[in-house]
Amino acid sequence: MADEVVLLDSWASPFGMRVRIALAEKGVRYVNKEEDLRNKSPLLLQVNPVHKKIPVLIHNGKPICESLIVVQYIDEVWNHKSPLLSSDPYQRAQDRFWADYVDQKFFEHGKEVGARKGEELETAAKEFIDCLKLLEEQLRDKSYFGGDNLGFVDVALVPFCSLFKTFETFGNLNVEGECPKLSAWAKRCLQKESVSKSIPDQNKVYDLVCEIRKLRGLD
Amino acid sequence: MADEVVLLDSWASPFGMRVRIALAEKGVRYVNKEEDLRNKSPLLLQVNPVHKKIPVLIHNGKPICESLIVVQYIDEVWNHKSPLLSSDPYQRAQDRFWADYVDQKFFEHGKEVGARKGEELETAAKEFIDCLKLLEEQLRDKSYFGGDNLGFVDVALVPFCSLFKTFETFGNLNVEGECPKLSAWAKRCLQKESVSKSIPDQNKVYDLVCEIRKLRGLD
Repeated sequence: MADEVVLLDSWASPFGMRVRIALAEKGVRYVNKEEDLRNKSPLLLQVNPVHKKIPVLIHNGKPICESLIVVQYIDEVWNHKSPLLSSDPYQRAQDRFWADYVDQKFFEHGKEVGARKGEELETAAKEFIDCLKLLEEQLRDKSYFGGDNLGFVDVALVPFCSLFKTFETFGNLNVEGECPKLSAWAKRCLQKESVSKSIPDQNKVYDLVCEIRKLRGLD
Repeated sequence: MADEVVLLDSWASPFGMRVRIALAEKGVRYVNKEEDLRNKSPLLLQVNPVHKKIPVLIHNGKPICESLIVVQYIDEVWNHKSPLLSSDPYQRAQDRFWADYVDQKFFEHGKEVGARKGEELETAAKEFIDCLKLLEEQLRDKSYFGGDNLGFVDVALVPFCSLFKTFETFGNLNVEGECPKLSAWAKRCLQKESVSKSIPDQNKVYDLVCEIRKLRGLD
């Protein structure tokens, strides 16, 4: 029996993008179900009753939630090609550490850039760029965080490139100027089909964030 | 050459306790270095410059940070006995999901119970008990979250038993009354030497929280 793979997703979600990239890297065929996050489907509420969030991967009827956990699952199940996590336990721990850093620090500060104004925004933008610089340091002179190939940290981080225009516009930042190596890395990732077809255009995401800011009275 | 294993730790930290339990389950000998968290050692700042937090496991000179990542590392390196994560990828994803839930929800609500007063405390206590009940549901009729043996979720959760007196006193809760199965599970875990020798007495932790609350003007 062929695998039945369904992804509950939302096009602008960097967390959904992670799963799309991982599935594309592994060459897994799946059905993508777009969720309306203001009116969540009974299926989403049924398969992720705890967090009620996308992405959820449903593999042969069994749901897996939380994007980094889903990406690890994909890497372990479809282990015939494109390994995402290292085979070395120490390197694997480092991969997990930096992917977790993307969620705990980079994403949290990035969110503030999109949601604040005035002095709060200035502080958020400074903290965000510090996070980017720290990530750039980790990249060193490698092509990818994973070395010569896309790895777990790349998959965790690269979806946020779709937000670079948003970060730059609202945070008055210049990602390329501040972090030239990270900027080159982002362009390199986007040359891969697994990434480019999984990530929406920056302008489309920017327009969405503008709409949300208006609804929240920020602009 | 024998492994050189050092743990930078703090006796009352549930996150440090996780690592102590995992090392005890695996029978790994190590040197425990108690950190003064108000005056962190140059070694801690050197090996965990990003978060500057304990626990840090230093294995043959290489540091691993973030307790759940450390526990997975221990499970992968010392894989000759007492497996903590399941060998099945789906079950492993579930283990990771619930261990992450302990950090994201259970711990956050528990912290509020120790740090709030008045109405805020009532809300925090209610949310905390809801988390406990959800965890109890997951336990079902198993001896441990890991089944017949201590597993990853047990190691993630059981250190918080050392805070039960604190939660009960400040949150006006009765863990045993609300969650009898979880309470029986906690007692079962504490019968294991790996757990009992890694977890401090509830009264000692309670006294420490009382001191902290006084310093913060909560009592």
